[in-house]
Amino acid sequence: MKNYINEIKENDLIDSLFLVKEKSSGVTKTGNVYLKLKLIDRSGEMEGRIWTSVEAFTKSFDKDDFVHLKGKAVSFQEHLQLNITHIERVEEEAILLSDFFPMAERDIDEMLQSLIEMSRQVENPHLSQLLHLFWEDSPFLERFKIAPASKWLHHTYLGGLLEHTLSLTQLALKNVGHYKGLNVDLLITASILHDLGKIDELSYQRSFDYSDEGRLLGHIILGIERVEDKIRQLPNFPKDLSTLLKHLLLSHHGQYSWGSPKRPMTLEAVMLHYLDDMDAKINGIQQFLRIEVEEGSRWSPYHRTFEQFFYVAGAWDQIEVPENIVKKVLEEE
Amino acid sequence: MKNYINEIKENDLIDSLFLVKEKSSGVTKTGNVYLKLKLIDRSGEMEGRIWTSVEAFTKSFDKDDFVHLKGKAVSFQEHLQLNITHIERVEEEAILLSDFFPMAERDIDEMLQSLIEMSRQVENPHLSQLLHLFWEDSPFLERFKIAPASKWLHHTYLGGLLEHTLSLTQLALKNVGHYKGLNVDLLITASILHDLGKIDELSYQRSFDYSDEGRLLGHIILGIERVEDKIRQLPNFPKDLSTLLKHLLLSHHGQYSWGSPKRPMTLEAVMLHYLDDMDAKINGIQQFLRIEVEEGSRWSPYHRTFEQFFYVAGAWDQIEVPENIVKKVLEEE
Amino acid sequence: MKNYINEIKENDLIDSLFLVKEKSSGVTKTGNVYLKLKLIDRSGEMEGRIWTSVEAFTKSFDKDDFVHLKGKAVSFQEHLQLNITHIERVEEEAILLSDFFPMAERDIDEMLQSLIEMSRQVENPHLSQLLHLFWEDSPFLERFKIAPASKWLHHTYLGGLLEHTLSLTQLALKNVGHYKGLNVDLLITASILHDLGKIDELSYQRSFDYSDEGRLLGHIILGIERVEDKIRQLPNFPKDLSTLLKHLLLSHHGQYSWGSPKRPMTLEAVMLHYLDDMDAKINGIQQFLRIEVEEGSRWSPYHRTFEQFFYVAGAWDQIEVPENIVKKVLEEE
Amino acid sequence: MKNYINEIKENDLIDSLFLVKEKSSGVTKTGNVYLKLKLIDRSGEMEGRIWTSVEAFTKSFDKDDFVHLKGKAVSFQEHLQLNITHIERVEEEAILLSDFFPMAERDIDEMLQSLIEMSRQVENPHLSQLLHLFWEDSPFLERFKIAPASKWLHHTYLGGLLEHTLSLTQLALKNVGHYKGLNVDLLITASILHDLGKIDELSYQRSFDYSDEGRLLGHIILGIERVEDKIRQLPNFPKDLSTLLKHLLLSHHGQYSWGSPKRPMTLEAVMLHYLDDMDAKINGIQQFLRIEVEEGSRWSPYHRTFEQFFYVAGAWDQIEVPENIVKKVLEEE
Amino acid sequence: MKNYINEIKENDLIDSLFLVKEKSSGVTKTGNVYLKLKLIDRSGEMEGRIWTSVEAFTKSFDKDDFVHLKGKAVSFQEHLQLNITHIERVEEEAILLSDFFPMAERDIDEMLQSLIEMSRQVENPHLSQLLHLFWEDSPFLERFKIAPASKWLHHTYLGGLLEHTLSLTQLALKNVGHYKGLNVDLLITASILHDLGKIDELSYQRSFDYSDEGRLLGHIILGIERVEDKIRQLPNFPKDLSTLLKHLLLSHHGQYSWGSPKRPMTLEAVMLHYLDDMDAKINGIQQFLRIEVEEGSRWSPYHRTFEQFFYVAGAWDQIEVPENIVKKVLEEE
Amino acid sequence: MKNYINEIKENDLIDSLFLVKEKSSGVTKTGNVYLKLKLIDRSGEMEGRIWTSVEAFTKSFDKDDFVHLKGKAVSFQEHLQLNITHIERVEEEAILLSDFFPMAERDIDEMLQSLIEMSRQVENPHLSQLLHLFWEDSPFLERFKIAPASKWLHHTYLGGLLEHTLSLTQLALKNVGHYKGLNVDLLITASILHDLGKIDELSYQRSFDYSDEGRLLGHIILGIERVEDKIRQLPNFPKDLSTLLKHLLLSHHGQYSWGSPKRPMTLEAVMLHYLDDMDAKINGIQQFLRIEVEEGSRWSPYHRTFEQFFYVAGAWDQIEVPENIVKKVLEEE
Repeated sequence: MKNYINEIKENDLIDSLFLVKEKSSGVTKTGNVYLKLKLIDRSGEMEGRIWTSVEAFTKSFDKDDFVHLKGKAVSFQEHLQLNITHIERVEEEAILLSDFFPMAERDIDEMLQSLIEMSRQVENPHLSQLLHLFWEDSPFLERFKIAPASKWLHHTYLGGLLEHTLSLTQLALKNVGHYKGLNVDLLITASILHDLGKIDELSYQRSFDYSDEGRLLGHIILGIERVEDKIRQLPNFPKDLSTLLKHLLLSHHGQYSWGSPKRPMTLEAVMLHYLDDMDAKINGIQQFLRIEVEEGSRWSPYHRTFEQFFYVAGAWDQIEVPENIVKKVLEEE
Repeated sequence: MKNYINEIKENDLIDSLFLVKEKSSGVTKTGNVYLKLKLIDRSGEMEGRIWTSVEAFTKSFDKDDFVHLKGKAVSFQEHLQLNITHIERVEEEAILLSDFFPMAERDIDEMLQSLIEMSRQVENPHLSQLLHLFWEDSPFLERFKIAPASKWLHHTYLGGLLEHTLSLTQLALKNVGHYKGLNVDLLITASILHDLGKIDELSYQRSFDYSDEGRLLGHIILGIERVEDKIRQLPNFPKDLSTLLKHLLLSHHGQYSWGSPKRPMTLEAVMLHYLDDMDAKINGIQQFLRIEVEEGSRWSPYHRTFEQFFYVAGAWDQIEVPENIVKKVLEEE
Repeated sequence: MKNYINEIKENDLIDSLFLVKEKSSGVTKTGNVYLKLKLIDRSGEMEGRIWTSVEAFTKSFDKDDFVHLKGKAVSFQEHLQLNITHIERVEEEAILLSDFFPMAERDIDEMLQSLIEMSRQVENPHLSQLLHLFWEDSPFLERFKIAPASKWLHHTYLGGLLEHTLSLTQLALKNVGHYKGLNVDLLITASILHDLGKIDELSYQRSFDYSDEGRLLGHIILGIERVEDKIRQLPNFPKDLSTLLKHLLLSHHGQYSWGSPKRPMTLEAVMLHYLDDMDAKINGIQQFLRIEVEEGSRWSPYHRTFEQFFYVAGAWDQIEVPENIVKKVLEEE
Repeated sequence: MKNYINEIKENDLIDSLFLVKEKSSGVTKTGNVYLKLKLIDRSGEMEGRIWTSVEAFTKSFDKDDFVHLKGKAVSFQEHLQLNITHIERVEEEAILLSDFFPMAERDIDEMLQSLIEMSRQVENPHLSQLLHLFWEDSPFLERFKIAPASKWLHHTYLGGLLEHTLSLTQLALKNVGHYKGLNVDLLITASILHDLGKIDELSYQRSFDYSDEGRLLGHIILGIERVEDKIRQLPNFPKDLSTLLKHLLLSHHGQYSWGSPKRPMTLEAVMLHYLDDMDAKINGIQQFLRIEVEEGSRWSPYHRTFEQFFYVAGAWDQIEVPENIVKKVLEEE
Repeated sequence: MKNYINEIKENDLIDSLFLVKEKSSGVTKTGNVYLKLKLIDRSGEMEGRIWTSVEAFTKSFDKDDFVHLKGKAVSFQEHLQLNITHIERVEEEAILLSDFFPMAERDIDEMLQSLIEMSRQVENPHLSQLLHLFWEDSPFLERFKIAPASKWLHHTYLGGLLEHTLSLTQLALKNVGHYKGLNVDLLITASILHDLGKIDELSYQRSFDYSDEGRLLGHIILGIERVEDKIRQLPNFPKDLSTLLKHLLLSHHGQYSWGSPKRPMTLEAVMLHYLDDMDAKINGIQQFLRIEVEEGSRWSPYHRTFEQFFYVAGAWDQIEVPENIVKKVLEEE
Repeated sequence: MKNYINEIKENDLIDSLFLVKEKSSGVTKTGNVYLKLKLIDRSGEMEGRIWTSVEAFTKSFDKDDFVHLKGKAVSFQEHLQLNITHIERVEEEAILLSDFFPMAERDIDEMLQSLIEMSRQVENPHLSQLLHLFWEDSPFLERFKIAPASKWLHHTYLGGLLEHTLSLTQLALKNVGHYKGLNVDLLITASILHDLGKIDELSYQRSFDYSDEGRLLGHIILGIERVEDKIRQLPNFPKDLSTLLKHLLLSHHGQYSWGSPKRPMTLEAVMLHYLDDMDAKINGIQQFLRIEVEEGSRWSPYHRTFEQFFYVAGAWDQIEVPENIVKKVLEEE
């Protein structure tokens, strides 16, 4: 059973799995070498020390490895640290990712099913076949199911990309019929594929960070390449349709300064951009409020990227309402 | 019966109502004074000349007056102009505004009824009463029904403000339930009231232009004052609720540089901003495409405010689709 | 008598009033609960600890309360801290605000008298009556007299708003006659009222921070509402005059990006903006130099908001001047 | 006696001085060569034609020459043009600059006297001597007296630089004592010298344009060089004082984007920047309103550089004021 | 033989090839339909009219067709126009592109040979093979040889892309060895391929304009796709090398706001960006000076995109140099 | 012999020269006063303490002095500190600058010779004489040889200015002949002189910081003054040539926002700007990579000024290359 870091107390005996985030060696005043580790799991991080069998243990695992360790929690200079008596590397297969990283709240397979369901509404045979190729690509699906949508701003948890993609596709369906003349098939397909490249842009097996490809090319280009790969398998896919679809992917950030090499030039691209931006922003704020707002506070701390404070939605509940009124806050339909 | 300017041909005898946009005098080579007019109606503009009884006629009407005139269309230097034999001022009541300005396509009273209908969903008694006060205010309704939403960019026709307000409120209802924790009453009320000040910002009886108040204070401030006026009639209206509602109105442009003195700080304000911006942009592009795109062209001309070209939606129709496919373009639900 | 924090030395016995800025509890190694406080007054801040009667004391006061406490200053890890033996909450009336916050140097009542005096020069009866209504409003005056002008940048002390308002009005009077055609009454009235909303934007009884209203609406809107409230009591106040006055208030920040929803469109508004900006900037720099420059240094530290260094005025004194010269630094006239 | 272009009527016989702005040749249908001129004076411009003695006349003057000509005004295609029968070049000494360019309204020598008078208040002997060197430099004074202050924005008339310099120096004197610790001598000297380089930046003998030096180096650098030249003649001028003075000149535009290579770093430099900017802006608006506003209009046309409309000050006069009130518009003190 | 438009004179009989830029119909006063054409070639444009056999001729060609026509140049309202008696469509193969569009001055095949020669210096076998694939692709070469490098700014003539590519590759070779540690193979390959996508972005057979693909995707993406296509034919091409190469292509505009979705992150990418920008800018200015500067002028007209004036290089020649000096202006090495 | 700080170990006895960066006094628990010093040399910084003869020692040296001290390295709270038993001030002449500051890798005199050699290529006698005056000015050369090129970004070491100047001049020579019509003499001269003012802008005898002059005027202006000083000694130096040369110096930052009061307006100025910017950027990145990248990392840390990460050039070496290939990384030619 997992010992979560934020539940460990002084003198607890520990026998559990952790991820080694940092690993270095030190020398005691008496001249002995020891190992200093930083251990993390989903709940937090703590220091670890290996005082014995240092030479043997140091070869048996590396930074960024998952390890199984045994030891005891002791207090040192007002902080808890783990005196480790045994440690060994374990394979990734042996661990539960959700023990180590935050996960989306909704069930991942359920979300994927919903998305595939929605994709059945696409009637254009070319687009429909294109989506089908993705749903049949298991290695793709494995990565698509757990990728986060972003490192910093929104849906920053395993399954976040899927959650955001599903949410955006639902929004697209809600809004596309509001205006005449938008092509629903194109918009739905683009909603599903718009952030595809993030499965290659971010590495998230050991920690959330950018891959080399991610930093050098970015998810927009990486996504276009994945789409291009599939289209190449569909020999009759119309060139114009491919161009329009890629335009929606390229332009969905809306502006040059946000990394889109093209601004939206069709109504579908305009709508995709607004809905994507709205979904990312609202999820980002909600996540920020959930994590960062102190109990009872009416205001969030300063959000560095958005460069502002947010008023906590809950504060609204405290507005005096006469008895005969029931305030109505809609839940997810 | 109205003679529309774009249907007048050489030698037509005219007996109809026009709006005088410019009025000046000239002198013929033989030294006689004549009047030069620019006449407009919904369909275009043309030159007019008064050669006789100049002194009498010149006193009987002014620039920006509606006039009833008789005359004959003649050709001068490759252009048609109207030689006027009789002209007299008519009261605004005598004309049909829709003869002179573009009108929303949908029936105005019907749109107003839909909006009032939607406002009944607001359950918070304070907000509900506030909206009620507006629906009972006939002078307000008169102006609200015909105001355009903007001089340049979107919904630039009589009834445009109402059309945009209705559209935004529908969008708000479609989207508010997609996220947990948003207050639907606040969002709907703010959607209905968000551009209220435009009835004072724009003058549109004779031509679309800004009023003095509009230029010096702007529709955001003017709208807040109208809301404040009504709230003052509701003695128990909670201060916090009033602050939140006004915050949504103040911040709906989203950024300082777009004239909002505050950026959105609540989830409702964030959503209102995105949906308002999306509705304005999509309507603006559609209107631009409708008016400015040449038959058969795949591209719009350059749009000066948006600083870009748009790809014409219709071009999409020309993508080759196999026979067994029916491309689906959703109509308004 | 007040013990000022920056004068407390090790082993001093303390019996004085403080403001509790932070309050939390800890556990000693032996398992006893104690209280950790951060105490502040005008001169600085220090840590406090309550080791005994913790349960009783903890209920008797809260964070942000003024307290009367007794204790002894001891040294812990190179810092002084107060071991508190007695603590109790006191009412705000019992304290001197100037013991806790920086105050304007000039006498507040004297500054208010000067301002009222200057307002007598306004000859337009509408504007004159409007100002009179403010001078008769005691609750307003109470707040207006002690409000700071800003949290960060300039006049950040009690009475700072009044000092800035007086300074700006003097500048306006000095400069208005320099150009032909400016309306002195309008400019003076706007100078006096321009930052009015700051009495509602900032809360400054316990600490300088923004009120909810302040953050959600901002001082420009709050000021306009206060002016509107008074104008409503003056039934014949001309609409155009009210619009022009409100335009000066709205536009005094000069640019959208500085939070003004309108840019100055009249000569009076242009002048008000420049003089206000100059007064805020010069006071801001002077305050910064006074507080942050080290003795003997010719340069200030880096000013984060202005993003630059300032050359210390005093350095000028060190320029070699021949004996027969008297350098002339003008004092306040 | 000068025939002003805007007073010439059909069939007038002309015998007067003009400036040749454009000169080219054409060929009549019958194959004869003629000369086409554009003639200007202070009041406007008109076309001129030379049909006879073309060969002789064409050698006797050039574009940008002042000429004495005789001819007759005839009407051609609805415009007046001058049929020229005699033309000859005249020296610049023979013309009155004020016949050809707009001039400052105030007497130039009187303004110069005022400025010199004010410079006597400078007590620092170094700065005082520096100013004295300029007042003794006749070639400098000749140019300084007639230079305009700008090609586009403000004080765009002969004597405009002097008028702006005088105005700024008066403003500096009015405001410098308002704050403690500013050095009045430094501020006054910098006010007088701040735009010095404009006498070299703009060429304004024949038309207002930039000189090569003006475009390649700019008036800030050119001004610093002129000041440096004089300082070199004052062997004991303190280095620090020279650095501070040059800093005020360098930074008076206030921001990099307005062409200042340094931002103001002393209180004197901050004040100089604000007052200079205010004076330029207010003069620029007043000039624009004077020239561009149509009789009776409450709004100016769109100002391209300031990117806005201005409300016409005169409109203020139309606000209804009760009988017993005398509105007070201050005249120049 | 071609009749160039700028050499046609009144009454000339014309029998030559032109490009039809505009085509519309009009009605004469007598009610007859005629055709109005705008004809262009390399040297300019002129109006054409077809008065007879209108129905037959109108079907025989379209706007944007090359035509062979016969007719006579007549004068109408001060302009020349062509009265056309015979017109017929010709195939593109029948015309000389250089009769219709400006061409690079240097011989195109010679430039291509130089470029291929330089590409032989690439030693890395993957990159070498990649370049080889392009040199073997005749349809690619056909387009690559005549494409312009830009519609507006620089190398805006047939062969311009090749000229710019050659120039940049030469610059890269000159500079790459100046710093240690840059990879010359990567830099040379990227220089050759950097603007590849322009052969698809611009259409330049009939007129210089953007293709649909060009506007919707842009040359950066189109170029990456062409490179990707070739790399797919090289099964062992290393992934990292492909990523680095594509990064150089993606980032060569240097900044988001100039349409690069990534900024340069390697030394080779940084150098490529600077040299590309310098070459485009210098060529752009030289072209602008060549075309737009009036004989004898020391200054160019205002350049709208660069937002400035340029000083004409030739002016330098006029600097007085003592006799014994030979000014040295280097020619192309 | 110098004891370098980064080589000092616990219990070492020290007898060496250091620079005193900070100096303050403290009080021990037993009430004795002691001195706290921060000592630096080229290799790092460490704490020092003086426990005895405090009063005498404290008078014998100041902050920013070079000192000779004796003492012993002891460990205190996990850090080494120096217990000083003797300390005395030494003159600057007694130290080796390269013991205290980072130095350029290449030999300084050798670099200067190369630069002078290159300057001989200037054929224009005016420019050649101008350069000669600088090479004859020993006090100038002393400063020019050791000045760094910048405090933060690039060439931030003694000799850095010379290294950057030499590098830029080499680049200029490599590139100037690539385009027709550029004046090589002007470009070379400007390359050599472009950053001249940095010898006055930065003070670098004791620490790298800005001088008063540097902050108030900046190196562009200071450089122009030095050039002006020399030109004044050359009575026949043509005015136009001087203006062009100064234009290149003024505009070499390329944009207003980077502190250039003029943008480049000649081809030479455009090239100088690009090459200067490229050289500074590439050197800045290389220095950053050399110092900040951890062993084995493929990515640099975040660069705050450039606001991005860099990919480590070395990573390129790890790309798999087939055996028969020799990757070619060019060394300095």
